[in-house]
Amino acid sequence: MIIGVLGPKGTYSEKAAEQWIEKTGRKGEDVLEYCADIQDVFSLLEKDGCDIGVVPLENSIEGSVGITLDRLMENDVQIIGETIVTVEHCLLSRGKKEDIKVILSHPQGLGQCRQFLKEQFPAAELRTTGSTSHAAKLATEFEEMAAIASPETADMYDLNIVMSNIQDRRYNHTRFITITKKDTGQKFIKQLQGNDPECSYKTSIIVYLDRDRPGALYNILGEFANSNINLTRIESRPSKKVLGDYVFYIDFKGNISDAIIKDALYNIEPKVGMLKMLGSYSEFDSYCESN
Amino acid sequence: MIIGVLGPKGTYSEKAAEQWIEKTGRKGEDVLEYCADIQDVFSLLEKDGCDIGVVPLENSIEGSVGITLDRLMENDVQIIGETIVTVEHCLLSRGKKEDIKVILSHPQGLGQCRQFLKEQFPAAELRTTGSTSHAAKLATEFEEMAAIASPETADMYDLNIVMSNIQDRRYNHTRFITITKKDTGQKFIKQLQGNDPECSYKTSIIVYLDRDRPGALYNILGEFANSNINLTRIESRPSKKVLGDYVFYIDFKGNISDAIIKDALYNIEPKVGMLKMLGSYSEFDSYCESN
Repeated sequence: MIIGVLGPKGTYSEKAAEQWIEKTGRKGEDVLEYCADIQDVFSLLEKDGCDIGVVPLENSIEGSVGITLDRLMENDVQIIGETIVTVEHCLLSRGKKEDIKVILSHPQGLGQCRQFLKEQFPAAELRTTGSTSHAAKLATEFEEMAAIASPETADMYDLNIVMSNIQDRRYNHTRFITITKKDTGQKFIKQLQGNDPECSYKTSIIVYLDRDRPGALYNILGEFANSNINLTRIESRPSKKVLGDYVFYIDFKGNISDAIIKDALYNIEPKVGMLKMLGSYSEFDSYCESN
Repeated sequence: MIIGVLGPKGTYSEKAAEQWIEKTGRKGEDVLEYCADIQDVFSLLEKDGCDIGVVPLENSIEGSVGITLDRLMENDVQIIGETIVTVEHCLLSRGKKEDIKVILSHPQGLGQCRQFLKEQFPAAELRTTGSTSHAAKLATEFEEMAAIASPETADMYDLNIVMSNIQDRRYNHTRFITITKKDTGQKFIKQLQGNDPECSYKTSIIVYLDRDRPGALYNILGEFANSNINLTRIESRPSKKVLGDYVFYIDFKGNISDAIIKDALYNIEPKVGMLKMLGSYSEFDSYCESN
């Protein structure tokens, strides 16, 4: 199987893909295809350049990854899995701390280290890159450049770890999702997860509420609450039509094949302007032993 | 009065401050104090370097401004007003389109033009700055540099408008909020808005729900729904403690001095882990004629 991830070698998304491969017991069977940015992972999937993509969805310090949410809305993809990666950002450079004038990273990397950058490098020029490892690769050019990336990329790109654990909170985790094209999703889920009823599943949907129906969100959440379905996340994102108009990304426990979930979604559908199913998948840390 | 805004001259936040000054009928009485970034506006307010700050909160294409949400949570400020600014990003440079190798802007500016940048300048180096006008100022240095900023900054910094209206959607608006220190907020509200019952008010709060209480968000929304209080926005942000743990930013119509709002908040308080009042303020476009 070909798995599209952020490249070049050394991204957290590659780490997520490897974690996921290991969880699903497929080690050695897959090939990684490196993409320049998150959007390219979705594009590669769309044109069948890969079977599966692994992209970041949310981080415990900096929150949602907007471009991933937007592509989930616009592309015809299905979420078939999730992985959580521990993020430990380092400042990597060929030079010394006092040489550093330019700092590069993915926008999420810069955001997760915002306080650090403001305190330690208030005058540094900040550059955004498609990935943290691309930042590391670029930082090899000049001693005055540094990248915010994982400690592993230091060796890969022959850079020094100038400072370690530089994110604004010690605890830093990113949730990645594994995606496929909608028409192939079901096949992969069967192949990778089996259909073990012991697995704990999660389902992700997007809903658009009509603005002129006050209480619409409350009514939807009511369908979940009344069926004792546990919401794990609710996130709003602009509909991009008018300011103040949103779509909601909702994650909850359970599988679309469960009668209780099916019923809840059946009740919700007529109450919303749009409902998009993103998929049901094994919760992180609940992959069944059989895999 | 001293009003802290993003600087240098030419930011959308300056435009927001001017719009707000005009709405409140104070033209000519205030002095703007330019700050390097959003965090500095909050810091200036904290150390009494300004009476009021104006900062961006959300954009119709790129969504919430994370750093503003975080500061609202951590600093002791009160929201006393809001303004909506039409954003029309241009690509500004001393050079021609074919010369451009480096593009600078505030992270929100880069995000709002993500598609444009990917299609038109796939190889350009992207740099983040504290504001769009700071990007324009820096872009004066070399012909190969361009800034994403407002058309007005072209004249201010003697740059050419290389391309106009480059954001990914034609419709592009940013909502700014006016903030004060909590202890001075009430004074300013009285001074600036009077207490006209004809004004349409909005209230903003932050709530933290205990994770082990499923349905907690539903119960809170129920308090609003049962009192026919109209929610205008609900946004989640990581609590920064553990992945999957969030605080919710909720905006609704009404004033904290209304009995119905007071009652709803009174009922909500025991159901949440934390409730922070951010303030009640005149809705944009509902400033009373008397002002």
